[in-house]
Amino acid sequence: MKLESLSIRVKGKKLHLLDQTLLPQEEQWICCDSVEKMREAIYMLRVRGAPAIGVSSSLFIGLFSQKRGRRKEEVEEAIEALIEARPTASNLRNLLEEQRLATDHYKLACSHFQKDFACCAAIAERGLPLIPDGAHILTHCNTGSLATVGVGTALGIIKEAHRVGKKIHVFVDETRPLLQGARLTAWELKQFDVPHTLICDNMGAQLMRDGRIDLALVGADCIALNGDFANKVGTYSIAVAAHYHNIPFYVAASTTTIASHCPTGKEIPVEMRPKEEVMGHRDIVWANPFSPVYNPSFDVTPRALVSAYIFEQELLPPFKDTKSALRASSE
Amino acid sequence: MKLESLSIRVKGKKLHLLDQTLLPQEEQWICCDSVEKMREAIYMLRVRGAPAIGVSSSLFIGLFSQKRGRRKEEVEEAIEALIEARPTASNLRNLLEEQRLATDHYKLACSHFQKDFACCAAIAERGLPLIPDGAHILTHCNTGSLATVGVGTALGIIKEAHRVGKKIHVFVDETRPLLQGARLTAWELKQFDVPHTLICDNMGAQLMRDGRIDLALVGADCIALNGDFANKVGTYSIAVAAHYHNIPFYVAASTTTIASHCPTGKEIPVEMRPKEEVMGHRDIVWANPFSPVYNPSFDVTPRALVSAYIFEQELLPPFKDTKSALRASSE
Repeated sequence: MKLESLSIRVKGKKLHLLDQTLLPQEEQWICCDSVEKMREAIYMLRVRGAPAIGVSSSLFIGLFSQKRGRRKEEVEEAIEALIEARPTASNLRNLLEEQRLATDHYKLACSHFQKDFACCAAIAERGLPLIPDGAHILTHCNTGSLATVGVGTALGIIKEAHRVGKKIHVFVDETRPLLQGARLTAWELKQFDVPHTLICDNMGAQLMRDGRIDLALVGADCIALNGDFANKVGTYSIAVAAHYHNIPFYVAASTTTIASHCPTGKEIPVEMRPKEEVMGHRDIVWANPFSPVYNPSFDVTPRALVSAYIFEQELLPPFKDTKSALRASSE
Repeated sequence: MKLESLSIRVKGKKLHLLDQTLLPQEEQWICCDSVEKMREAIYMLRVRGAPAIGVSSSLFIGLFSQKRGRRKEEVEEAIEALIEARPTASNLRNLLEEQRLATDHYKLACSHFQKDFACCAAIAERGLPLIPDGAHILTHCNTGSLATVGVGTALGIIKEAHRVGKKIHVFVDETRPLLQGARLTAWELKQFDVPHTLICDNMGAQLMRDGRIDLALVGADCIALNGDFANKVGTYSIAVAAHYHNIPFYVAASTTTIASHCPTGKEIPVEMRPKEEVMGHRDIVWANPFSPVYNPSFDVTPRALVSAYIFEQELLPPFKDTKSALRASSE
């Protein structure tokens, strides 16, 4: 089985990751051959996107466990260190909790890889009917092939709609502070020739007012049992604006994003990030250097603002019935 | 009379402007001694803020007209060129339309300077009762001493509230794409020791949901006769979020911002800006270079979302009665 996605590769029994902080200007692969390197890659968002973080971490544990003389406690410590690297992403926690109980870590990692690939395809298929021909779609952050090992979640549906010939147009939020929309989503859509336009995060509401957006479609990093969900900061603002303008707001995610330890959005831990991310870009600082900064990586959107969740499971009821959909996935 | 503000100086019969594109890292003054230089300074946002653009342009015309042998047509052409430099800002148009009819351009310019100074003080005084002690305030863009020749409009009220001892805290939107909040407002609040926190534009809605914002207070670049107004892009998104969370949303502006040629927001011309502003910062490009970009400099917020307009005129009725307030200013 070939373990190779757009941003994750297993080669020579080692895990290689495409450094997403440098895209699209530079394509540089890093070799994560120690827990510290893997933890750093996750924390620094060299690998990002809830599914990709989960699968690559599982692969890391699979490979790590195979080293001759590796003790069980070392594997457990590695799992613990990686889970803590990004506290909000529930795929990471869910997949590594499974690894904790596994006897063959590598086999489980391979199955995680395969499942995520299939899961993306299923999400794309299930989401397709929600995208009308000619739709103008607003999306946030990156939820495509760089964020998963397959076609993506929200962006997977969008690419699939384009592939089957629907005439769509995507407004891409640049996604401050780390600019995953401007750097990654715009690049990915360009690769597939999907018509799109890059905007600042603060422009979407006015586009809705102008009647230029038909639906909003985002991914999720953590979905509580009641349907409240955390996603890249800025998502909540889109949900509020979509609600005000009476525009459907859809969330596409794998069921591995559901956090059984979070009954509601209140229990979702929101990761705080360094102020430097907001103050500038890489080595440049543009902000007043003496001002305090608030930089949550995610925000939480209540279930009430979600028009439908698009999961991969076939057993899910029609999308509009979000309550039962979630009940089905979480039971 | 000394013509000197934080960012505008008349010295040796020439107009000098603090280049705001370089703040807060560099303090560099430019001398605008030709129409082309002045036009470039306005277009490139070296001088910015609707009142400051208007007053500095009026001063430029005043000084320009004084040159020996200057023909009337040259002055008229200069006025035309400057008005076109930024089509949304109505102070620019209003002040230069007055210059068109003036016999002594320099005298009128001096009066514009003085009036804006006094106007800021009046706005600050009138806005003060709207700021409760202990208030957490969300603001957008820069509306302080760099944007006017006085204490400012929205930010003037905020600084005044702090000066009189109210314990306030300001959340400063960074204000993409040109980062006037991160660069200028954060810097200005730091100068006056006003407690504040820099955030990305996409974070304010969640702060409202968390109960951490008591009111939103912004400026305006153009106010239509019915009360719809244009302000820095991102303002509308704040207004929608404030409405959804039942938080007061105030607009502070001089009556020179009212555009008599715009019956409603629909008639306000919204300036489109180059894609490079969104794609990166100065010489750096981070966005996918092949993606189209949408970059309106302003958005339009309908009157219905405004809790109150804070103008300088004493004759205005209580703030909550926005309809009559506007009627009074526009009649």
